[in-house]
Parts: sequence; C-alpha cells; structure tokens
Amino acid sequence: MPDPTTDTPSPSSNSPGKDDPLAFFARLKPHLARLDTFLHEQLLEFEPEVRELAAYCIDASGKRIRPALVFFSGWQGDDTVSEDHVRLAAVIEMVHLATLVHDDIMDGATLRRGRPTATEKFGPDTAVLLGDALFAHALHVAAQFPTTAVCRGVSRSTRRVCTGEIMQTLAGENTHRDTAYYRRVIELKTAELFHISCQLGAALAGHPAELADAAGRFGRHLGTAYQIYDDLADFFGDENRIGKTLGTDLASNKATLPLLLLQQRLPTAEADALRHEMATGNTANIRLRIRQMADLRVFADVMAAIEEEIHSAETALAPLGDIESTRLLRQLAAVLKAQAARLRSASS
Amino acid sequence: MPDPTTDTPSPSSNSPGKDDPLAFFARLKPHLARLDTFLHEQLLEFEPEVRELAAYCIDASGKRIRPALVFFSGWQGDDTVSEDHVRLAAVIEMVHLATLVHDDIMDGATLRRGRPTATEKFGPDTAVLLGDALFAHALHVAAQFPTTAVCRGVSRSTRRVCTGEIMQTLAGENTHRDTAYYRRVIELKTAELFHISCQLGAALAGHPAELADAAGRFGRHLGTAYQIYDDLADFFGDENRIGKTLGTDLASNKATLPLLLLQQRLPTAEADALRHEMATGNTANIRLRIRQMADLRVFADVMAAIEEEIHSAETALAPLGDIESTRLLRQLAAVLKAQAARLRSASS
Repeated sequence: MPDPTTDTPSPSSNSPGKDDPLAFFARLKPHLARLDTFLHEQLLEFEPEVRELAAYCIDASGKRIRPALVFFSGWQGDDTVSEDHVRLAAVIEMVHLATLVHDDIMDGATLRRGRPTATEKFGPDTAVLLGDALFAHALHVAAQFPTTAVCRGVSRSTRRVCTGEIMQTLAGENTHRDTAYYRRVIELKTAELFHISCQLGAALAGHPAELADAAGRFGRHLGTAYQIYDDLADFFGDENRIGKTLGTDLASNKATLPLLLLQQRLPTAEADALRHEMATGNTANIRLRIRQMADLRVFADVMAAIEEEIHSAETALAPLGDIESTRLLRQLAAVLKAQAARLRSASS
Repeated sequence: MPDPTTDTPSPSSNSPGKDDPLAFFARLKPHLARLDTFLHEQLLEFEPEVRELAAYCIDASGKRIRPALVFFSGWQGDDTVSEDHVRLAAVIEMVHLATLVHDDIMDGATLRRGRPTATEKFGPDTAVLLGDALFAHALHVAAQFPTTAVCRGVSRSTRRVCTGEIMQTLAGENTHRDTAYYRRVIELKTAELFHISCQLGAALAGHPAELADAAGRFGRHLGTAYQIYDDLADFFGDENRIGKTLGTDLASNKATLPLLLLQQRLPTAEADALRHEMATGNTANIRLRIRQMADLRVFADVMAAIEEEIHSAETALAPLGDIESTRLLRQLAAVLKAQAARLRSASS
C-alpha cells in the first residue's frame, strides 16, 4: 500500500480528482500530524535512561496504515481531529513498531526504511527489551481511556499477532506448510491489527457494536488482502519501488501462498528442488521460479485471492450504510486493488 | 526468599510456632492453589496452536513471591480467597514469567528450576514471541477488571522493569558502573513489581490510596532488599541451597553491589584485574574474590544495606496500623532478614 505520508502517485495510476490517491491521503494530513506530535510527547513518559532508544524506534515511522484505518473508520470530518482516535492510533502503531523491532531480530535484518534496525544499532538483547518496553507503554496509553475496552481489544489482538508470528516461525521447521496454515498465520499476524484498528476506530466514533464489528470485518479482509499482496509483490514487485530484492521469502524459507501453490503445481522432483532452495536460502533460480509462477497460473490464482478478499472487505461494510467512513474505507480498498493490478502488468 | 510452596524450614531457623516460616507460608495455601487453577484456566484463552508452548512457560512456576505480596497486602482472612486478588496475582506472575523467558534468551540460560528454558526448548525466536504473547495476555487479564486501574499500574510497571533490564544490559558495555546506577537498575528491574503487587493488592482490598501507597513503598523497599540479598547470595550462598554455582554475576559481567564495592576497595592493579576477570567471564579467582569481600568489609556493608532496606520496608507500613496485612508483610520481611542472616554465618 502506498505510504500515506510520502508516496507520490505512480505514473500508471488512473484518473485524477476523486480517485487520485494523493488527494485521498491528503485528507489524513492533520490527523497524522497530530499523531506524530502525540507519539513524540509519549517519549517523555519513558524513563530518561531509555528515552533516546525509544525515540529511535518511534522515529522509524512506518507507513501508518493502521492509523489510517483508525481515522477512516471513525471519520468525523476532514478538519475534526479526534483526540480519542489519535490516542488509539498511537497505541496500535506502538504495538506495530514493537513487533517490527522483534521481527527484525529474528530476521537478522540490518536495515529498515533506510536506517539501521534497532537490533543492528543497539544489539539484539537491548532490542528484545526495547520492544517489550514499547509494548508495555502502548498498553499504558490504552489504559488512559475511561473504560477498559481499548486495553481489552488491543491486548487480545497483540497476543494473536504474536501467535501468528510463532506459527510462522514453527512452520520453518515442521510440515505445517499448507494453504490453510498460511491463511491462519496471516489472519493472526497481519489481519488482526487491521481488524482491531477498524473495530475500535468505529466504536470510539460512537457506532453501535454491530456496526463496529462490520468495520472490524472489513479490516480483517483488507489485512488479509494486504498480506497476500505483499507476499506476491515479493516475486512480482518493482524492486526499485518496494526497496528490496525479490525473493526474500524464498531466501528466508517463508511458506507464503505463491511458494505453496508453486510447490503444489511443479512436478515432484522440481518441487523437491524448490523446497531445498527454500531450506538452504538459495535464490540462484529465482528468475526461473518467478517464470514458473506465471506459467503455472500461480500468479493468477494469488491475484484472484487478493481480489476476493478485497471484495469481501467491501461487502462487509454494507451495515454501515452510506456514510463518509464507508466511502473512505472503500477508497482505501480500491487503492490496494489498483496497486495489486500494477503487479499484474509486471508479470506479462 | 524461601519458596512459599515447597521450601522446608532450614535447620538454622529459630523458634517454631508463630515465627515458623512453614506455618506462615501455609496460610497462603488455598490462595496459591486457586492461583494455580486460574493460571491453568488461562491456557484456554490462548489460541490452540500455541497453548502447549504457553503451558510450558506457565508450568515453570516460580517462587510465587509476587503473588504472596498481592495476597498478604490485601489479606481478608485465611479462608477468604478473593477472586480479585487471584486475578491480580495471575497478571503480575504472568508478567514476571514473560520477563524470565526473555531474560533466559539474553543470558543464554539452558536450565531454570531444573527444566530446559523456553529458549533452549523452542529456540530463541519462538521464545521472544512467546514472552510477548504472555505479556499481552497478562494485560488482557488485567483489562477484565471493571476499571483501568490495574492495567494502568501493571503496564507502567512492566515498562519500568524492561527499562531496568535495558540499563543492566547497557552497563555491560559502558562506564555506568557505580552504586547509584546499580540502585536505579534494581529499583526498576526488581523492586517495581514488588511495589505494584503490594500497592494494587492493598487497593483491591478497599484500602484508600494513601494506605495502598504505603503498602507499595513497603514493596519497593522489600524488593530492593531482596535483590541486594540475591546479589550477595551469588557469592556467599549455599550452592546446594540456591541450586547454582557461585560467582555467576562475576562470570556474566553484572556490576552488582558486592562487585562494585570490591572494585572500589581493591588496590588499582587488583581492581583492574577483577574488571578484566568480569569482562572475560573468568572465575578462576572466585574463592580469592569472595575472601577479599569478607576481608574488605564488602560483605558487612552489603549486609547493612539489606538490613537498612528491610528496616525502611517495615517503617513504611506504619500508616496501615495494626491490621493483619501489616503483621503478614512484617513477617515476610522478617523471613528475608533471617535468610540474609544465614549468609552471614557462611562468611565467618
């Protein structure tokens, strides 16, 4: 998904005006600006001895997709920045940043968004603890709402995100490498935070529980679509655009949907060779594997899975009716769909 | 501190009856039994895919010192097991267990309480995520109280515990190795959870804020005494009793109070040699270092620091007046004092 704060529209994006992603994301500007201020104010809540370390992690601002979901789900007007939504967005973003700090330790990642990762800069031991401190502070901010609802939702979602990551780690070692397992992993590790962002965003705007749940279902489907898209882009993305080399999931032995489908469709000996490449992190055949994905309709079927999830997301919004939140969330889904469509052209 | 559930009284402990630690800790039996049931019920809240892993960590039941503080601070009678206190004890114990899971990764520990650590059994990547899931679930249980008070207190304390651990990790690499820094580290990494156990334990029993704060101050001083005791026992403990070899803090380059004072009092060349032993994890001279600690009054001064903290803990209880909680917490402090006194005899 484009970075709402910095991405420029791709030359292949279509009509301007109402469908212009740049104009669309510009509506978030005052909300994201207030979020940045809020996050920086939070640094003062950390004990002085670790403030600089926490600042390093919070400065590494991600794409702010989850905050965008919070704001759109609880939309109250372009110029109305709700403090409750800023606080919720900060809570969820801090949880997300904490998971990134821990992910980078496991992946041995040295760079994220052009800067050394926390584990690279401070060492893995400090990075584990720093991630923990971010988690804890996120929940502390959640506990400043008048009721326990945000704490309850965010802590449960956090546990589920970690569960998804554990399952992904375990999948590296055992035989749980089928599409059902993959679906469950991404439902937990990615779709869960999208879900809670939308559900609590709508609830904080005063929508009754059944409408907040509808927004939550939108988030879950969008998050699923987003992760499948991300896994497909790992083979069919524009290296310059996504800022990393292709095939990192093959290299790190992650059984994503494109790789699982390719394994299923290759002749046995060839599938075994692919498994061996994954287990040993050998990307010498990456161009061949990508061509096979196109030839064996892996690309087409994964794309269909993305579109199906986006369709389910749009459908889930029906109970909300014709309100501005619905329009904004639909537009966000359309942006993802357009972005996925650009992968299509890359394969042909 | 003796394990309230399994320790037998040491032969050197004095009068039986009212001061018998075994009879004293027996009063916790129904409370700790209910806590165990509650903790095992929590496993059903974890997603099925990680339930067994979570069970492994929760089964590794520690000494239950923090639960004991929760129950004593909010005492409502030997046969009255308060569900609120069971829930609070479970929250704090899960946070504590999560920190142990992460500590063991950093220390490269393979055994804890006679069983392989989580990092040894499941690998460090899974252990990081499993600790995260335990943290998250602890906060989820905290969010089931009717108000946000427990979430607020526990999340803040958790952040402070992590901060103390970060400072300890950083101290391994830099020059912040003086007694003021040490005091700050143990105030955060150990005394903080003792503090919140007592403060929230008293608050949940209906004590007004100023009395809950008094109980919290008791906890902070007792936790400080406990950590200093633990650091002294690393050199003067009974290896059979504490179940580990002496000098592990020297071997792992932890600048504890006994080591800091010894560095200060040794002639420069000898102090440099000690620093080198710490930096390289060389324990060949451990018997010499222990003898020097006794000769240079390091042992005596560290013992005095423990006794001073225990005295401050007892004094902090004054506002609570003559209630059963006061008597129980005083007795707990006395148990620690007696245990420290047994170290004294080991040095002479």
